[in-house]
Amino acid sequence: MSHPSFTSDPVALLQDLLRCRSVTPADDGALSVVAHALEMMGFEVTRLAFGPEGEQTPNLYARLGTGKPCLCFAGHTDVVPPGEGWSCDPFAGDIKDGHIYGRGTADMKGGVAAALAAVARRLEAGPLKGSLAFLITGDEEGPARYGTKSVLEWMKERGEAPDFCVLGEPTNPAEMGDVIKIGRRGSMNVVITVKGVQGHVAYPHLADNPIHRLVPILSDLTSRTLDQGSEWFAPSSLQITSVDVGNPATNVIPATAQARVNIRFNDLHTSESLRNWIGDVVSYHAPEATMEVAVSGESFLTDPGAEVEQLSEAVQVVTGRKPKLDTGGGTSDARFITHCCPVAEFGLVGATMHKRDEHVSLASVEQLTQVYLEFMHRFGV
Amino acid sequence: MSHPSFTSDPVALLQDLLRCRSVTPADDGALSVVAHALEMMGFEVTRLAFGPEGEQTPNLYARLGTGKPCLCFAGHTDVVPPGEGWSCDPFAGDIKDGHIYGRGTADMKGGVAAALAAVARRLEAGPLKGSLAFLITGDEEGPARYGTKSVLEWMKERGEAPDFCVLGEPTNPAEMGDVIKIGRRGSMNVVITVKGVQGHVAYPHLADNPIHRLVPILSDLTSRTLDQGSEWFAPSSLQITSVDVGNPATNVIPATAQARVNIRFNDLHTSESLRNWIGDVVSYHAPEATMEVAVSGESFLTDPGAEVEQLSEAVQVVTGRKPKLDTGGGTSDARFITHCCPVAEFGLVGATMHKRDEHVSLASVEQLTQVYLEFMHRFGV
Ligand SMILES: [Zn+2]
Ligand SMILES: [Zn+2]
Repeated sequence: MSHPSFTSDPVALLQDLLRCRSVTPADDGALSVVAHALEMMGFEVTRLAFGPEGEQTPNLYARLGTGKPCLCFAGHTDVVPPGEGWSCDPFAGDIKDGHIYGRGTADMKGGVAAALAAVARRLEAGPLKGSLAFLITGDEEGPARYGTKSVLEWMKERGEAPDFCVLGEPTNPAEMGDVIKIGRRGSMNVVITVKGVQGHVAYPHLADNPIHRLVPILSDLTSRTLDQGSEWFAPSSLQITSVDVGNPATNVIPATAQARVNIRFNDLHTSESLRNWIGDVVSYHAPEATMEVAVSGESFLTDPGAEVEQLSEAVQVVTGRKPKLDTGGGTSDARFITHCCPVAEFGLVGATMHKRDEHVSLASVEQLTQVYLEFMHRFGV
Repeated sequence: MSHPSFTSDPVALLQDLLRCRSVTPADDGALSVVAHALEMMGFEVTRLAFGPEGEQTPNLYARLGTGKPCLCFAGHTDVVPPGEGWSCDPFAGDIKDGHIYGRGTADMKGGVAAALAAVARRLEAGPLKGSLAFLITGDEEGPARYGTKSVLEWMKERGEAPDFCVLGEPTNPAEMGDVIKIGRRGSMNVVITVKGVQGHVAYPHLADNPIHRLVPILSDLTSRTLDQGSEWFAPSSLQITSVDVGNPATNVIPATAQARVNIRFNDLHTSESLRNWIGDVVSYHAPEATMEVAVSGESFLTDPGAEVEQLSEAVQVVTGRKPKLDTGGGTSDARFITHCCPVAEFGLVGATMHKRDEHVSLASVEQLTQVYLEFMHRFGV
């Protein structure tokens, strides 16, 4: 087995990835860069396209060895659109003053490149004790319907069960070593539609104003403090994101009013407990109202035990800083992975992610590579 | 002076008016029918077109005699669109089973025809003691900006000051003799716009959700019982007619939220007292919010004194029923006339107004003619 030295250079790998215009749902060869690097290192790579014919999501699963423990690196190669106002080509991988620029440097082609390079270095250092896997999707920034979730289903059918997973999302707000994410809040969306009886404002007793039923519902929902946070989680938060009636007539009581609510909830709630509460509030004020609930993900927490401690030690050894164990921010594919195995997230600095001139320092890419390598040693793979 | 008998037949006059397709703002000859009848009776008729060149509102003012007291009949010849589903031609004036059909029979070509016929009968009965006037507009159902209001301004400039005005809107809900209107509630519209700070739902502390400021405003506004009604008025009523945000993104806290409010208020409030109250509520919850206020009319009440009593007696003599003195329902041009002279409203049965197959009984048109004639005698004109 040969391990050409280029795969142990995370910056070269990152440049190859940045030069693919993989704006979700496009792939533009990004997964092939990953597949090629893995194949060069001896991985058995399976390309997995899921979803409806003609608009399938490209994914990749790779495995090296069969021993225990099995560590899986997860990530995505799709990126959000570049938007306007860049001072350089967002798909060139330009290096300037010790930083590398491009859409996806932080989120998260840099994380994928560091994992590949770290594995190359691990293999150069001697035979594996356990085994390694990669789960890379081309749809994390899009609907994420046929990405990581579908690969995990496929893995389950095949008995592919890693013991731990590291997801290389940019978890550090400002500096390498800031934050390891060991969970995420859950997220759910609720659409409340209140139907009333249309009428003329001069004769309100002949009408039933749906807005006057919706207002106390929204008042009750926003008045409740869901919680004060828990050991590992920030307080849950309910936000009304839209209220819409669309009645242009100033003398007409409308027939329908609708509100949209998003809740980010911690481990003190489940989507079901919140659905029941909202259902009670809605039916108290508007028995005939309807409610549509869409759950993006339940809250989850990875037990901050041995593996998380090993990852934390690896971060400290490399960066000299003790990372905070955190569960804040938006959702990630960790919400799916948690159903398969314990998962922790550590990656680059996310300060410029989703913005123009997204960039990371070359030093941070090297540090992340070393963190992953250190963790592999500690984890015993 | 000749008074051809046809002007004393309200049904013939009503048919002439119905056959004009005077769907607001069109006139289609309707005011000419009125003008011709008045000229035949010796009135000095002035056609008054107000408003921007090319889209002027046609109006008519007429005066017969200069003596005191001066009684003015007011009304409108424009009608709302016929809509669908008629079982007859809405502009033919068909008579069937003792009823006359057509758009405007009740609201209010029937009232105008009855006033003209009553005046013809009055003039046939002997010389006037006082004097008579007619104020007829072609824009009551539309924006009413250059209709009655403008004629009243013109009258004021010319020193035309009636002592009392009867407006022939269809005041009777079910039967002739039900209701004389001696006032109307005021009406105002308020648009409240709350600006917040847009952000991601996962980071609510970095945003300022304008909906969460608007909800307590609307909650406060709808929680207050404005009043329990007053001697002559039903309770005031506040209705939120629309709330709009238009945010399609379920993960975004929007930047702006807007609500529209209509208030129908009685003589316990003024538009200013209500504006101040709403302003206080808005600035308490959202100091940066803006408020646009449009007042359609203040509430008004015609003192239920001698003239109203005379009109009530006239209704009782003709219909055998004692009318209720009422201030309910939507607005009418009486809101403008009240600034010129006391005004009471009595007309036909409004059950089918603004609906398909609008119609009134021939008997009711004759009764209304007799009521106006009786009132002229009692009023001393
Ligand atoms: Zn990402
Ligand atoms: Zn009318």
